[in-house]
Amino acid sequence: MIRVKTEHLGKDVDIVAYAEDIERINQGIDARSLPGNDYLGWAKYPENYDKEEFERILKAADYIRNEVDTLVVAGIGGSYLGARAAIEGINGLYGDNKVEIIFFGHTMSGKHAKQILRKLEGKRFAINVISKSGTTTETAVAFRLLRDLLEKNVGKEEARKLIFATTDKEKGALLGLCKKYGYERFVLPGDIGGRYSVFTAVGLLPLAVAGIDIRAFMDGAKNAMLAYDSDEINEAYKYAILRHVLYKDYGYSVEMLVNYGLHLVQLGEWWKQLFGESEGKEKTGLLPDSAVFTTDLHSLGQFIQEGSPVLFETVILEKDPEEDVLVPHDEDDLDGLNYLEGKGLNYVNSTAAEATLDAHSITGGVPNILIEIDRFDAFGMGELMYFFMRACAAACYLNEINPFNQPGVEVYKKNMFHRLGKPGY
Amino acid sequence: MIRVKTEHLGKDVDIVAYAEDIERINQGIDARSLPGNDYLGWAKYPENYDKEEFERILKAADYIRNEVDTLVVAGIGGSYLGARAAIEGINGLYGDNKVEIIFFGHTMSGKHAKQILRKLEGKRFAINVISKSGTTTETAVAFRLLRDLLEKNVGKEEARKLIFATTDKEKGALLGLCKKYGYERFVLPGDIGGRYSVFTAVGLLPLAVAGIDIRAFMDGAKNAMLAYDSDEINEAYKYAILRHVLYKDYGYSVEMLVNYGLHLVQLGEWWKQLFGESEGKEKTGLLPDSAVFTTDLHSLGQFIQEGSPVLFETVILEKDPEEDVLVPHDEDDLDGLNYLEGKGLNYVNSTAAEATLDAHSITGGVPNILIEIDRFDAFGMGELMYFFMRACAAACYLNEINPFNQPGVEVYKKNMFHRLGKPGY
Repeated sequence: MIRVKTEHLGKDVDIVAYAEDIERINQGIDARSLPGNDYLGWAKYPENYDKEEFERILKAADYIRNEVDTLVVAGIGGSYLGARAAIEGINGLYGDNKVEIIFFGHTMSGKHAKQILRKLEGKRFAINVISKSGTTTETAVAFRLLRDLLEKNVGKEEARKLIFATTDKEKGALLGLCKKYGYERFVLPGDIGGRYSVFTAVGLLPLAVAGIDIRAFMDGAKNAMLAYDSDEINEAYKYAILRHVLYKDYGYSVEMLVNYGLHLVQLGEWWKQLFGESEGKEKTGLLPDSAVFTTDLHSLGQFIQEGSPVLFETVILEKDPEEDVLVPHDEDDLDGLNYLEGKGLNYVNSTAAEATLDAHSITGGVPNILIEIDRFDAFGMGELMYFFMRACAAACYLNEINPFNQPGVEVYKKNMFHRLGKPGY
Repeated sequence: MIRVKTEHLGKDVDIVAYAEDIERINQGIDARSLPGNDYLGWAKYPENYDKEEFERILKAADYIRNEVDTLVVAGIGGSYLGARAAIEGINGLYGDNKVEIIFFGHTMSGKHAKQILRKLEGKRFAINVISKSGTTTETAVAFRLLRDLLEKNVGKEEARKLIFATTDKEKGALLGLCKKYGYERFVLPGDIGGRYSVFTAVGLLPLAVAGIDIRAFMDGAKNAMLAYDSDEINEAYKYAILRHVLYKDYGYSVEMLVNYGLHLVQLGEWWKQLFGESEGKEKTGLLPDSAVFTTDLHSLGQFIQEGSPVLFETVILEKDPEEDVLVPHDEDDLDGLNYLEGKGLNYVNSTAAEATLDAHSITGGVPNILIEIDRFDAFGMGELMYFFMRACAAACYLNEINPFNQPGVEVYKKNMFHRLGKPGY
């Protein structure tokens, strides 16, 4: 269960004033009657997903886990951020993973590519290439390189069995490659955009290969769907309203998502795409930013506390973390830490969080929205990601913005294709 | 050599108008006559550093590289960001490193701590604990845990030889621990603050253990010092003026540092601390943000191109990257990439950068400052980091802000110590 708390907001917000807007928006999402309605497949997906494909995903993941120790996921934007965020958030950064997941195909640095290819030299590995079209430059280049190497390493026939594609059901270059070479394929549904795709095969196959219980992940999403697909001001819509009012009425320019663990850095990156790409249109929208405390309190903390008052914070707190370490006793106590002896690090962490909420909101005057979740496990992560997707759609509609297009992304691409001499540009 | 270019700025800036300010500021830095003058040790450090200690750092690094395969660096804020940024930027993320460097001691997540301790279970590893005082909570807790584990793994006597401390020369709890247990120690000079410390032992020991040529790194810094410690408007001061004018005269709130490779994500994090903690005071300053393209063009790109006009970009381009990979031929060309056949990824990357500079600055109206460096090797990284430090000091003085204190960081700490029941709070 997710709770949105306002005791550190420090601003008056008349949430109930938005009751009619929310009713209209929620009904509009369900009736697919709002702008961007062609891309609302994610809204009921936790219930409507293809159960047969889900079983195939589990089977493919088992196969990969038994056959290789490395899976390379080639995708960019929505085709990797969700999976990476969920895997790191749930498994942690130094977990004892059976299969190493390498995300490759989202930048063009020669150095980075060379190092990854060198690491995979001579190795038997699996590939999950994720692209709606199959022609996205970064991903397509990475897939060419990876496929060539894998074929060199294990032979063409064997390579075919180690390549898995997630792509459009009916069209596109990657679908053509699948048909020609017989790669097993999964569907990126036509009515779900990249940044809303973590509950499709885009997210599920990498998660399952990482050993995550994807049934629990989908259960979390469904739980959130049942809670937040309602005409009332539920927690997701409450969050949408709070940030809307801080933007429109109080003039804040930046929303900073704060987490309390390094394994949640990528959750911030996923969230930044979700909100930035959905909302940042028509010269409007909150700039999404992210930080991880306590480390960034020794970096951005000074600015948040005393710098330009341009931002508010949205802080995610995990109430019941799974694992803990206790502060050990030290006879000499030269570091003066014995007052924490026997206390858990999670206790210190949550105390730091409470202290920071006060420091920033009361002393610093920075509004803080608090989002409490039970645990960053598969269920909790599924719940939280759906919560944000639902909130994001509502937030955009409150700003009268279509949450599901991204016209601005094409500008640099057209410039680039022209300069690179791509046929047709 | 670093070049600051303004052809994608899209705004009129009268740089020469700042000639007198810059002269006064540069003379003030050299004469130590400006606010914060107790912390100007970094300014001449690339020349004045302790040569004897430098040799000891090299010797210690050799010892560590010969004895273990893992070094855990325990530090927070300026005591880890610079080293991590330089190591990742120079070595890349998947380089073939002899020693794995793990940064630990900058968050309090129990899950993260547990995983790292589990990974180190039974292992012979080295520790570099970095703290001016030795009582910073995150780092001191991590050091207790690491020392306990190492002593369990290899015995107390052997552990002493594998622990290296970087701390104050004359005082503090960590110095006391060094004296009591005989750890080899290096100096965090009293007149250099954490975020300006990458050229001291704070950065140098981890870099040397990572196999980086720290002589070249210091040569780069010295080269930059000779170029940017001048009363004229050199490249560093030009950058400081440009961002100052975009802030003061054009009203931008956010500066986004853009790099073109995942191995440079941490350079963005270091830069965010440097500028955010130096400048974010008295309700003023540019919020520092960062991104890595091309990947974030599929995430934040939409917002930058068409969202609220609150930010400008500072883009770092590497003119002569060391390694490259060529796009291979494909007979079928189903992905339509043969037009790039035989081209290097770095060529595609730099073409994407040019296309994006145009897309953002011309079509999007977002000012872009361009910083060109030759190469992200040890020399180039040293040069760039000093460039930013010099520019940051000048930028703060242009805003009439002391660049070297961080009064706001104490607020959350005091709250936290009170809640945790620390004696004296």
